[in-house]
Amino acid sequence: MRVGVLGAGQLGWMLGLAGIPLGLRFRFLDPNPDSPAAAVGELVVAEYDDRKALARFVKGLDVVTFEFENVPAAALKAFEGHVISWPTPQALAASQDRLAEKSLFDRLSIPTARFAEVSSFEDLGRAVASLGLPAVLKTRRFGYDGKGQYVLRGIDEIPAAWSALGRQPLIIESFVPFERELSMIAVRARNGEVVTYPLIENHHAGGILRESIAPAPRVSPAIAQAAIEHVTRLLDKLEYIGVLTVEFFESADGKLLANEMAPRVHNSGHWTIEGSACSQFENHLRALCGFPLGSTECTGFSRMLNLIGDIPPADAVLAVPGAHLHDYGKEPREGRKVGHVTVCGATARECASRAAEIRARCGMPKD
Amino acid sequence: MRVGVLGAGQLGWMLGLAGIPLGLRFRFLDPNPDSPAAAVGELVVAEYDDRKALARFVKGLDVVTFEFENVPAAALKAFEGHVISWPTPQALAASQDRLAEKSLFDRLSIPTARFAEVSSFEDLGRAVASLGLPAVLKTRRFGYDGKGQYVLRGIDEIPAAWSALGRQPLIIESFVPFERELSMIAVRARNGEVVTYPLIENHHAGGILRESIAPAPRVSPAIAQAAIEHVTRLLDKLEYIGVLTVEFFESADGKLLANEMAPRVHNSGHWTIEGSACSQFENHLRALCGFPLGSTECTGFSRMLNLIGDIPPADAVLAVPGAHLHDYGKEPREGRKVGHVTVCGATARECASRAAEIRARCGMPKD
Repeated sequence: MRVGVLGAGQLGWMLGLAGIPLGLRFRFLDPNPDSPAAAVGELVVAEYDDRKALARFVKGLDVVTFEFENVPAAALKAFEGHVISWPTPQALAASQDRLAEKSLFDRLSIPTARFAEVSSFEDLGRAVASLGLPAVLKTRRFGYDGKGQYVLRGIDEIPAAWSALGRQPLIIESFVPFERELSMIAVRARNGEVVTYPLIENHHAGGILRESIAPAPRVSPAIAQAAIEHVTRLLDKLEYIGVLTVEFFESADGKLLANEMAPRVHNSGHWTIEGSACSQFENHLRALCGFPLGSTECTGFSRMLNLIGDIPPADAVLAVPGAHLHDYGKEPREGRKVGHVTVCGATARECASRAAEIRARCGMPKD
Repeated sequence: MRVGVLGAGQLGWMLGLAGIPLGLRFRFLDPNPDSPAAAVGELVVAEYDDRKALARFVKGLDVVTFEFENVPAAALKAFEGHVISWPTPQALAASQDRLAEKSLFDRLSIPTARFAEVSSFEDLGRAVASLGLPAVLKTRRFGYDGKGQYVLRGIDEIPAAWSALGRQPLIIESFVPFERELSMIAVRARNGEVVTYPLIENHHAGGILRESIAPAPRVSPAIAQAAIEHVTRLLDKLEYIGVLTVEFFESADGKLLANEMAPRVHNSGHWTIEGSACSQFENHLRALCGFPLGSTECTGFSRMLNLIGDIPPADAVLAVPGAHLHDYGKEPREGRKVGHVTVCGATARECASRAAEIRARCGMPKD
C-alpha cells in the first residue's frame, strides 16, 4: 500500500521507519526540501495549499494521514473522494480550535478546567469575573509549545493580555494548580477496536516537552480507568481511525482534567518504539491500513529525553546501556527538537538512573 | 556519517532501517535496480566489479561494509586507502573458501568435523578412505543455502559426486550426525570489545533457513561458554570489526563443532530487531562507526520465521499478538526469501504457540 503523509518532519520520518517493514511505501508533502522524512520516502516539495502539488501528491495513494493538526482546508478538499483520508476532518477541526475542543470534551462529560469564549474585551472582563483568577487566556487556533498563551494573575493584567492576543478569537480557562501533566496515546481501528498505551508523565521547560516517563509512576487504578474511558468515548464519538493523544492535568487533589488533544502520533509516545510491543507509529499505520492493532504492552520502563537545539555526540548517548538515539537529521537551531533519546530499563529505578547518566554525559539540565 | 553497503538486499535494507535513527546516511551498490535497500538510501546500480561505478560509489563515504561474503577482489581493491572498510579482507577471504575457513578454525583449536582438501579424483578416493563415509563433498567457494554439496553415503557414489562437483576446488568433510544447528552472532568493536548474543537454534528445510529460536532452548552452560570462547578467539585473531556469525553443529553426544562463519549480519539474527536490547544491525553499525556497542540482552523469547516465495496477507500475520512483519518488498519467486516474521513472547511456550498460530494462519508447514 502507498501511504501519503502531509508533513515530512520527525513524525513522518518515524511513521516511514515503522511502515517500511510492513511493506508500505511513503510519499510526503512538505515545503521544506531538507525534511527528515525524505530519508524514508518520496518527498513532494510544496506549500500545503498548493492545489496542483496536492493533486500530484495524492495520485496513486491508498491512504493519507497528517503529521500535524493545522491542515489547511485546501488540502482536505483536495483529498475528498480521492483517497481514504484519516483522521477525519471532524477530528482535525475539533483539535484546531481550543473552544471547539473544550466544548467537545464537555459534551462527552470529560472533565476540563472551566472555560469561556472570549471575542471582545468585554467578554474578557465578564469571563474573569465569572471564572476568577488566575486564568489562562489562549488563542483558539495555532497554539503549540506554550505559544499564544497569557497567564493572568491580577485584574490589572487584563489590558496587557488583551493587547497581546486580542486580535484573534480567544478562549479563557481557569488556571489549574496541577501536580503533573499526563498523556494517553490511544488507537482506534477501522472496526472500532480501541487500544490504549498506559498513562505517560510529561515534563516541560520553556513550553517544550523535555522528558516523558512511561509508564507514569504512582497512577491510581481509578485515574488509569478514567483516562481510558474518557479517551475511548472521544475516539468513538469522532469515529476516529488511527492514533489520537489526549493531554491531561492531574490536580493536586487527584482529579484528571483533559487539557487538549492531538489527532496524531505524539512526542510523548516516542518511547513506544523501543518500550512497547508495537509502537504508536506502527499502530497508527495498522489502523489506517485496516490491519489488526498491535499490543500496547510495555516491555519494561522507558524514559524519553528530547534533544533540543543540537544532537550530543552519539558516543556519549550510546555508552549508556539501554539508550536508543533518534537523530532526525535536522539542522541545529536553538529551541528546535532535533532528536530524542529513549532509554529503557528493567525497573523504574534503573531507567531513571540511566536517564540521569545520559543527561550528565550530554550536558542536559537535570530532571 | 555516510555508510556504504555493497549489496542492497534485505540485509542492507535492515542495516539502513537500523542506522537512519542514529543519524547515518546510506549508499548501496547493487546490480539490481529493484533492490529492497533503495527504500532507505541512495542506490548505485552497477555490477560489483565495475571499477568506474565503484569509484563513484566510494566517494564521500566514511565507512564501507558488505552484505555478503563473496565480494569480488576488484571491489576490495577499489576501496583500499579510500575509506575504512570493514570487515577486513582477511575475514572475507577466510569465509569465501571453506578450506581456508576450516583450517583457520583448526589453527584456533575450534573443533570442526574432520576434513580434507580435494583437488583431484585421486584425492577424493584417499580422503574417503581416511575419513570414512558418510561424508560431504563441497565446493570450496560460492556455496550457500545447501548448494554445491554432495552427501556421499557409499563408495559407489564417488564417481557421481566427482562428476557433479569436480570442476572446482573441493573440500570433503566427515558427515556429522548432529542433533541440531546452533548459531552465534557476535560483535567486535574497534577497541577490541566483544559482545555476543545467546546461541540460536536454527531449522532448515530444502537447504533454506525456515525458523530460528532465540535463545536456543536446552543449552548447557558448558556449550554456551565454549561457543563464546570460540567466537571471541576467532574475532580477535581476525582483528575483526562488526558482526560475525558462526554456525555450529551440536552433536548427539553434546559436542559443539563449528561448521562455517559469515562475516556479516545473519538471517538467524533477524529476531534481534525486536527480541534484544540492541539489534545485530545497529550493533554492526555501532562497531563500524566506532560507537560503544549496545546490549545484546534478550527482551523475552523470540522466533523468526522466514517467508519463502511470497508474503502472506499482512492481516493474517499481524492478528497474532507479538508478531512483527518484515516485508522486503521483493517480487515473489519460488524459494526466494521475501520477508520474515519475528514473534515475541514472555515465555518460550507463549512464543512457540504464537509461532504455530502464524504458521497455521499463513499456510506455512508445521515446525
